[in-house]
Amino acid sequence: MKQIHGLAVHAAGAQLLAYKYGVEEIAPNDVEVKISHCGVCHSDVHLIDNDWGISKYPFIPGHEIVGVITEIGSSVRDRKVGERVGIGWQADSCGICEWCRQGDEHLCALSQPTCVGRNGGYADGIRVNSRFAIPVPEVLESENVAPLLCGGITVYAPIRNHGIRPSSRVGVVGIGGLGHIGLQFAKAFGAEVTAFSTSKDKEAEAKSLGAHHFVSTRDTGALKKVAGSFDFILSTVSADQDWPAYIAALRPKGTLCVVGVPPSPIQLPAFGLIAGQKAVAGSPIGSPRDLHEMLDVAARHGVKAITERFPMAKANEAIAKVKKNQVRYRAVLGN
Amino acid sequence: MKQIHGLAVHAAGAQLLAYKYGVEEIAPNDVEVKISHCGVCHSDVHLIDNDWGISKYPFIPGHEIVGVITEIGSSVRDRKVGERVGIGWQADSCGICEWCRQGDEHLCALSQPTCVGRNGGYADGIRVNSRFAIPVPEVLESENVAPLLCGGITVYAPIRNHGIRPSSRVGVVGIGGLGHIGLQFAKAFGAEVTAFSTSKDKEAEAKSLGAHHFVSTRDTGALKKVAGSFDFILSTVSADQDWPAYIAALRPKGTLCVVGVPPSPIQLPAFGLIAGQKAVAGSPIGSPRDLHEMLDVAARHGVKAITERFPMAKANEAIAKVKKNQVRYRAVLGN
Repeated sequence: MKQIHGLAVHAAGAQLLAYKYGVEEIAPNDVEVKISHCGVCHSDVHLIDNDWGISKYPFIPGHEIVGVITEIGSSVRDRKVGERVGIGWQADSCGICEWCRQGDEHLCALSQPTCVGRNGGYADGIRVNSRFAIPVPEVLESENVAPLLCGGITVYAPIRNHGIRPSSRVGVVGIGGLGHIGLQFAKAFGAEVTAFSTSKDKEAEAKSLGAHHFVSTRDTGALKKVAGSFDFILSTVSADQDWPAYIAALRPKGTLCVVGVPPSPIQLPAFGLIAGQKAVAGSPIGSPRDLHEMLDVAARHGVKAITERFPMAKANEAIAKVKKNQVRYRAVLGN
Repeated sequence: MKQIHGLAVHAAGAQLLAYKYGVEEIAPNDVEVKISHCGVCHSDVHLIDNDWGISKYPFIPGHEIVGVITEIGSSVRDRKVGERVGIGWQADSCGICEWCRQGDEHLCALSQPTCVGRNGGYADGIRVNSRFAIPVPEVLESENVAPLLCGGITVYAPIRNHGIRPSSRVGVVGIGGLGHIGLQFAKAFGAEVTAFSTSKDKEAEAKSLGAHHFVSTRDTGALKKVAGSFDFILSTVSADQDWPAYIAALRPKGTLCVVGVPPSPIQLPAFGLIAGQKAVAGSPIGSPRDLHEMLDVAARHGVKAITERFPMAKANEAIAKVKKNQVRYRAVLGN
């Protein structure tokens, strides 16, 4: 029996420890991937700490995986041994429901997350359904691609699905692990891009990543000055915000899309939504279709996560730094 | 100088009193309409009471108007004397901004409401820009059409703009002045329609108006039973609701659209929006394009407001009854 070696967490909030698990004959629709890189996503931290109450211990975290296919199941026709692929939050889906049929596998009720009830990417290998192993264009560096597989798709999918185009005025709230990628994709779609951040010292970098404008949200009144300015605002932050001010910052028909989860319910003035025909939307990850497309766009437009590399063996150190919000902008473990 | 006779309110909450105003030569782009019917909309009550702080006294309320064109300005090419037309919440717009250019005149920043800063339809005549006088198909009865011009378009526009179609599962919350029309239009779009009401005794009527299903929202747990069921939920109520339950009642990619204004902010759990890629939208009235289309659809599908008729002279009585929510479902004044 083949064995996969990785780092697992055995109880909520515990340190990662060396761990191995055996795998039998490969399933017909799976591919096996030799992992070279795995990003450390905030969701891993939430799973490690069981913040969402869905963690099953022991498990190997990690769902921003890049590696090379070493084996394919007997029914796999879309992937080949030797291909470099990326794997994100999702490792499988039912394949037959209406959402799977229409290319929205991420909305499948039987979606299987890569490291919930399964072992993820802080390891030397992994097996997933071939539909969720996405080829990585040659020009992209594995280390910079890894965080795109979850962090990147989380901002790419809403920009894509809400029809952002060169005439759009887009705001990205929070210039961190998600936002710094969001700025790049919004620019790739040709939009006029504004970065919103509490950190005035991120202005130069935000502009180098694609922002045309920068709004320091610590300035009282800065948000009021941009009332009626945006077709689309993407909120990547996980802190409570002045939501009515962001609604007011939208132009008629504008949408505020949240991908970060704030601690309190979002409070919305109904009248502000009604009068301007506005909306507040949520967006999760993306489908395999979105992932394919995102990697193509990243290759064409040079979009990449800004990363800090850690050896796989130092995953605990990386996690500690992610927890303290000290990584700019994404930690990536390398084998 | 020609005079228009109507009923005006002279101070917040006051009774309507006989009132007249003079009109000079007709403006080049205006039409003059001899009013036969005018609906009593809840917005009139809000304006009479100055609930929104925008009322300018004295003024003649009324913005659900049906009548016949008696005069046209020198530049009017789209309307003719003798045509029966409907006029809704909006009497004019700038005509040159991006919203006016693209057929979204209702979002024009210089939109002129029919009875704010102008005199409305509780009168024998009115003048409005010809673009906002919409021809009424011959088969429709004036009394039943009047409430469509504001109440009807408020539910028609979101059903249209959110792409409801025969495969859609639509919920309409609140079976009153707006909701009873919403059921009819949702059915006209071919959707599977569910009525939500606190009044169990409205079930038979809701079903006769197009609802396939009825959910009594007084039943504890009734909302939970329909979790994950709807592509689109239209909330017409002006009371606070269990918003998280309505978000949960949406299917993936579903939208909750509010057209009623509840007293408190709408509280939304971010995670519920994100996980199912859901949205909460607002919708105001509609554009002239939407009004034209709505009246055609009403004619083709027999959609009509259920009305209670009052002579124009008894407008105060009608308003009192509207205030007490005793009209099923729309009061209409007739000259």
